[in-house]
Amino acid sequence: MSPLKVVLVSPRNPLNIGAAARAMSNFGFSELRLVNPYAVAFREARSAVKAHAVLEQAREYPSIADAVADCALVVGTTAIGPRVLEHPMRRLEYGGKLIAKKLALAPPTQVALLFGCEKFGLSNDDMSYCHWLMRIPTREEHGSMNLGQAVAVCLYEIIRSPVAAQITPDAKRPAAAEHLERITELLETILNRSGYIYARVEGSTRMKIRRLVRRLQLNAHDADVWLGMLRQILWKSEHRE
Amino acid sequence: MSPLKVVLVSPRNPLNIGAAARAMSNFGFSELRLVNPYAVAFREARSAVKAHAVLEQAREYPSIADAVADCALVVGTTAIGPRVLEHPMRRLEYGGKLIAKKLALAPPTQVALLFGCEKFGLSNDDMSYCHWLMRIPTREEHGSMNLGQAVAVCLYEIIRSPVAAQITPDAKRPAAAEHLERITELLETILNRSGYIYARVEGSTRMKIRRLVRRLQLNAHDADVWLGMLRQILWKSEHRE
Repeated sequence: MSPLKVVLVSPRNPLNIGAAARAMSNFGFSELRLVNPYAVAFREARSAVKAHAVLEQAREYPSIADAVADCALVVGTTAIGPRVLEHPMRRLEYGGKLIAKKLALAPPTQVALLFGCEKFGLSNDDMSYCHWLMRIPTREEHGSMNLGQAVAVCLYEIIRSPVAAQITPDAKRPAAAEHLERITELLETILNRSGYIYARVEGSTRMKIRRLVRRLQLNAHDADVWLGMLRQILWKSEHRE
Repeated sequence: MSPLKVVLVSPRNPLNIGAAARAMSNFGFSELRLVNPYAVAFREARSAVKAHAVLEQAREYPSIADAVADCALVVGTTAIGPRVLEHPMRRLEYGGKLIAKKLALAPPTQVALLFGCEKFGLSNDDMSYCHWLMRIPTREEHGSMNLGQAVAVCLYEIIRSPVAAQITPDAKRPAAAEHLERITELLETILNRSGYIYARVEGSTRMKIRRLVRRLQLNAHDADVWLGMLRQILWKSEHRE
């Protein structure tokens, strides 16, 4: 069982329930709990053609107290800005990392992450079951997110790897200087034949072309491709005459 | 005009177009571009009751080349894992930060962020317009995200503040030791009266209670509330006898 339980409080829209389940599956969480869902919505979400295993295993609870009973950390999500609330409020960047740490303990802390209903979010009464609240850093003028999108963004922050943010992907092997020089020579020959280069500026033009080719920062594979293309162009220009 | 353009390639579902626009508005981006959208979907999305300004200003383009013509960086999103693609592939954590840096330049680089159609994602032909690709770190077994959720997650990473991840929210002023000691004394008196404490273990029990109260890590406000509650309980127990 996943130590993170996503708890939707009174969801009304089957598409949102389905979207929450899909994001959970995308990011590797399996335990969806619904508090007092609109019955038709839950039924429709379950019967959707593309319903996920997450949704099939989702459980219904009559109250928040029941849904979070086995959890040692209960976090509520809210679109409310940093206005005075009776609860500690953490931005997602920070709160998500705190949750990730709790989940990574051995044994992991059982964590409930609460999302309110589409229209009103979590009520003050709902929030009173939470240890703290988490805020997605949306714009003040348009803070309220779609439920399925809010679930996706919160779960992403929780699985997000700070290490991956630092890693530069392996660059492809850069082209060797001899290939760059061969490209420069071929390009110069072709440009000479085409009349682009005048004899009197030949020296400075050669340097310009050399620098231009280096700035392409070609990798070994692409340098081969360019060499092939230039050789063919040169061959054709020689045989046309 | 926002320097980040969200480009949806051949979207089919009006709800997804609307969800993409909503996430853009949530995270402060305004320029939505649609390449060859399913006409009915675009019309329906626009006519939705809660259509956003973002959607009203969305523009339609006949091809990717047209949609990204004014952009100096074109990034494609894909659910494909690190399988061999002809393109440099970056995980969202890293790619999102690269995009954020480009947007923060003065003047900002115009960036196009491409999302493929719901069913197939970006084709190889679509990707060939991109400088590099970005991958949301979903599970290998279920990599494909809902379009609206994928847009939300990518935009969140772009606006995400690395600094906010480090900040510890201001803790409330902790309770002064004299208040903790007063709580300890009151609790001890009440427990004595209630028969919880036996005279012979009194000394060690007092220490236990003292440590128990310290571990509550009360803030100044909550300490006041507890003091009030305990005083009332004591008063009642004295006046009942």
